[in-house]
Amino acid sequence: MQSETQNILQTINSPADLKKLEISQLPELCKEIREYMVDILSHNPGHLASSLGAVEFTVALHYVFNTPYDKIVWDVGHQAYAHKILTGRREEFATLRKFGGLSGFPSPAESEYDAFIAGHASNSISAALGMSVAASLKHEDRKVIAVIGDGAISGGLAFEGLNNAASDPNDLLIILNDNDMAIDHNVGSLNQYLVQITTSPKYNKLRYNMYMRMKKYGLIDEKHRGQILRFGNSLKSLISRQQNIFEGLNIRYFGPIDGHDTAYIIRVLRDIKEMKGPKLLHLKTVKGKGYSPAEKDAIVWHAPGKFNKDTGERIKPCPPDGIPLYQDVFGETLVELAEKNDSIIGITPAMPTGCSMTKMAERFPSRTFDVGIAEEHAVTFSGGLAKEGMLPYCNIYSTFMQRAFDEVIHDVAIQNLHVVFCLDRAGLVGEDGMTHHGSFDLAFMRCIPNMTISAPMNEQYLRHLMFTAQETPTGPFTIRYPRGRGHCKDWRCIPQKLAVGKGRMLREGKDIALISIGEIGNAALAAAEKAKETAGIEASLYDMIFLKPIDEEILHHVGKNFDKIITLEDGTISGGLGSAVAEFMTENGYKPRIRRIGIPDTFIPHGKPLELEKLCKTDTESICNAIMEECRK
Amino acid sequence: MQSETQNILQTINSPADLKKLEISQLPELCKEIREYMVDILSHNPGHLASSLGAVEFTVALHYVFNTPYDKIVWDVGHQAYAHKILTGRREEFATLRKFGGLSGFPSPAESEYDAFIAGHASNSISAALGMSVAASLKHEDRKVIAVIGDGAISGGLAFEGLNNAASDPNDLLIILNDNDMAIDHNVGSLNQYLVQITTSPKYNKLRYNMYMRMKKYGLIDEKHRGQILRFGNSLKSLISRQQNIFEGLNIRYFGPIDGHDTAYIIRVLRDIKEMKGPKLLHLKTVKGKGYSPAEKDAIVWHAPGKFNKDTGERIKPCPPDGIPLYQDVFGETLVELAEKNDSIIGITPAMPTGCSMTKMAERFPSRTFDVGIAEEHAVTFSGGLAKEGMLPYCNIYSTFMQRAFDEVIHDVAIQNLHVVFCLDRAGLVGEDGMTHHGSFDLAFMRCIPNMTISAPMNEQYLRHLMFTAQETPTGPFTIRYPRGRGHCKDWRCIPQKLAVGKGRMLREGKDIALISIGEIGNAALAAAEKAKETAGIEASLYDMIFLKPIDEEILHHVGKNFDKIITLEDGTISGGLGSAVAEFMTENGYKPRIRRIGIPDTFIPHGKPLELEKLCKTDTESICNAIMEECRK
Repeated sequence: MQSETQNILQTINSPADLKKLEISQLPELCKEIREYMVDILSHNPGHLASSLGAVEFTVALHYVFNTPYDKIVWDVGHQAYAHKILTGRREEFATLRKFGGLSGFPSPAESEYDAFIAGHASNSISAALGMSVAASLKHEDRKVIAVIGDGAISGGLAFEGLNNAASDPNDLLIILNDNDMAIDHNVGSLNQYLVQITTSPKYNKLRYNMYMRMKKYGLIDEKHRGQILRFGNSLKSLISRQQNIFEGLNIRYFGPIDGHDTAYIIRVLRDIKEMKGPKLLHLKTVKGKGYSPAEKDAIVWHAPGKFNKDTGERIKPCPPDGIPLYQDVFGETLVELAEKNDSIIGITPAMPTGCSMTKMAERFPSRTFDVGIAEEHAVTFSGGLAKEGMLPYCNIYSTFMQRAFDEVIHDVAIQNLHVVFCLDRAGLVGEDGMTHHGSFDLAFMRCIPNMTISAPMNEQYLRHLMFTAQETPTGPFTIRYPRGRGHCKDWRCIPQKLAVGKGRMLREGKDIALISIGEIGNAALAAAEKAKETAGIEASLYDMIFLKPIDEEILHHVGKNFDKIITLEDGTISGGLGSAVAEFMTENGYKPRIRRIGIPDTFIPHGKPLELEKLCKTDTESICNAIMEECRK
Repeated sequence: MQSETQNILQTINSPADLKKLEISQLPELCKEIREYMVDILSHNPGHLASSLGAVEFTVALHYVFNTPYDKIVWDVGHQAYAHKILTGRREEFATLRKFGGLSGFPSPAESEYDAFIAGHASNSISAALGMSVAASLKHEDRKVIAVIGDGAISGGLAFEGLNNAASDPNDLLIILNDNDMAIDHNVGSLNQYLVQITTSPKYNKLRYNMYMRMKKYGLIDEKHRGQILRFGNSLKSLISRQQNIFEGLNIRYFGPIDGHDTAYIIRVLRDIKEMKGPKLLHLKTVKGKGYSPAEKDAIVWHAPGKFNKDTGERIKPCPPDGIPLYQDVFGETLVELAEKNDSIIGITPAMPTGCSMTKMAERFPSRTFDVGIAEEHAVTFSGGLAKEGMLPYCNIYSTFMQRAFDEVIHDVAIQNLHVVFCLDRAGLVGEDGMTHHGSFDLAFMRCIPNMTISAPMNEQYLRHLMFTAQETPTGPFTIRYPRGRGHCKDWRCIPQKLAVGKGRMLREGKDIALISIGEIGNAALAAAEKAKETAGIEASLYDMIFLKPIDEEILHHVGKNFDKIITLEDGTISGGLGSAVAEFMTENGYKPRIRRIGIPDTFIPHGKPLELEKLCKTDTESICNAIMEECRK
């Protein structure tokens, strides 16, 4: 895979090898790492732009610190590709995000250099603080470094970490990787602040150099250093009329400095390495650095898919024959609804492109809110809007909705507010893997009183449900739908109002009842056909559409007429549709055997969707086998 | 109820009445409100100290603003008693926290003056921002005020709100009620910061007065005001070497001012009321203000129970005959375990007294961490500690654990880290009501892979489980237990290692199987005895101890031998023990009828525990009736 010109990189099999290099060789190494990343990712898609921006400081960190004894805790791990390449995984990097290959995120199960899990944003400071305190309690002189992006630092968890960082004895170093861009553009005052703080980079560099000179000549010592730096920050805040938030939180602040000047970063790191107490080094980096197409449009190149590395042309997947992505159906339909209903508001925490809320933002900018990486705020803010008569469509990926579970209960459901929760990326998401599968939403939403929960089997039903949610002002309304493409060319139907809590029969047969919700109904339908062809089995299939309220008419019918049931859902088998059906049957005195097909009660790795479906036995063939097995019992 | 001397208060039936008073009469009114609160709360227990500290600014807010058109959004609503008294609920205040009476927290269902729900901390800024943006979109000149305590502002959700407050056009006013104390003492840098910012109150008052004078003489206008104020804040940050965090977030900062000087607060509120953009007024208040016993020990008087209002003597409930609170058994046992195991660390987010972690803090201060109102951080920090070989016992009230659901999954369960989650206040909590019942933990924990979930039936089993968790290093281990007193005088047994995933048979009978988990097993046992006496029914009773992994041996036995099952849990009936049993039976071809007893799928109000148990039909009598009904079928 490697180009023959990557001479230095080929010698690096661990950070120990890296440390043998001269500082003057490191820029060339960084160049080679970039080439290698671009080369691999051009045919094996991944997150490109973030990792390109993080190459120099990753090299610097491993050059200065003694990993894996010292711990680097990444935050939103897709900035960590250079880290993987430098820590004994250079060759395996070609297997990135493939089934059985390297994870796209840091994974302690994969390497001792991956100090902590890093799929969901904003966790690095708290985790690193725990590790740092543990080192202190064990009297180990271990350095712990939390790396956090300027997008992730807006999350509440990161703030809780910052707020606690100075509370207890620890020597945590926080690296703020500031590329002025989360996945999409940045929002929030903290980010404006980070932009403004950099208005006088010369001043900062000057101040640091002055400090180093004073130290060299013995004019200052450790004890006075903090005061001098703080005085400098205060002086700066006077000059720039800006306040230093980190200093306000008792965290020593250094920066901002150029995040692509490896030698300078190393100098600073070496200087602050032994400094006591929590400290933050602010690096300015360029997302997509060193690969000009990515530098020009970092949003597109966040995760560009395959591309021609020489021309920078992105290679689109096979023509989809007009079959859209679910996310685009959401985006288009939201605009259609919003055009006719002034109360509709679009809200997303940092995922406007990913969920296609960009369409709403273009059409109705004043009614669209990207609140940054802040799922909790997104939900409570939606609650406030709904309380005053607006109709928020709050779009959060299923896996990230876990962050706002309490807000859904406390700030929306208790007050029975009419908020529409649109959970994109529900179910298995493929290559992002373990940290990103939307496995739990059906289960954790089902226990919430007042909640309506639905899932469309195709794009048309997504539109019907979005319309139905608007027409049904009875409290919170959840619509969960999968990642990727749907099924219908003719998806742009006229949205219909569905009866809430009513499912539909898709197929009638006497031998076994299949009860499904959402996208998996398509596989169930194909499996039922196949079971008929293969074994002459006649299966009924019900698409429930709603998990809650559940269609009791269908369930009574099934209970009365079948002694074999298979439930199917693209979600965990503990607590979702299968559980609801089992509860109903046993409560009402029906006595069927029930087989629950869904995501098993384990964390599912990464891979192609079909590979994962086979693993979970939620693919058509496995479902067909299950039907035949049940009918043989 | 009211003293005849409360002459002014008796004339206030709404904020309109309040507005008829002269400013000079307000201090007397505040005094009367205090007297009335102390009077009522002395025999009808509630949260005293917080509300005593909030009297003046509550009066000022209703005096200046046009509620309920203008919206006051409270945060952690137990500071809101004066608000209730002033808004048409003076007489009803005597029913506070009683079944069918006033809620202890603001409740929109109770009064149009209660703008938003306020049971869980840190939500007011986000909710108020939503309401403020809604007003702006509807072109309504509505003022929205978020009140937040210095404890609640450390929560991540509050920070997400602050970070978004300046992003979109809104005129939000944030009142920071700073009494330098959450429920317990405060922690975190933000709180140190709030203490330090007040080192020069004279300077602040001077600055404000100077500003008012300049305005009066036309020397400044609205356009320049912001700059002048910010320059002042910057100057102050230079002088005090403190940075103004709020100004850093683009929120105009005023204060701190004396939160008990009603006239002065009114002057400031009137001045900043029409100011555009988000702004924060920092009030210094005294928790317990005006009632000397409460001023002296605000922790004890946070929620003092009944007391003699004249002597300040607290009236202890009937002597408990040596039967301890569950929380104290937790606290004592943790110390016992920690004495023998150096790796044990205690972590709690702002509840050291409530969960009795104070015992550990006294004995092992360096191994005990109160992280402030920051549940997410508490869990991820625990994850970091566990990753480095420590054994965290992380105690979070069940209802607040909802806040950290994602962190439990992502930062602990995926890595299968050995963290012990101790969920105090699980199940119905009584007078705190709807926002505080720990109804959902069994359901939301059960869907998490790698998680062990347990619940003790009494204090001895709490000790056994805490010991077992230590001895079972197989990943996250949850122990949920109720509020209040247990059952055993002889609770201080030698802790035993239980077999994980094994239950026990408490009673053998042929007619029906009762399967319970936790405390409710006691009611089930009594009900079984009663059903035998009343109707000769012989019931088996199994205390499962573990919800996950569940004891399949018991379930097979029950499946083979019973056609009637009742499951019992002090948690929601959707997704917990009942569901697990229904899943097992239908999957394994057993055909019992199953009745699930637990908290119904609705939000349960406040009241005495027994009143609520009757409502939920989880009391002994209701369970006995259920047994007899099932056996008649």
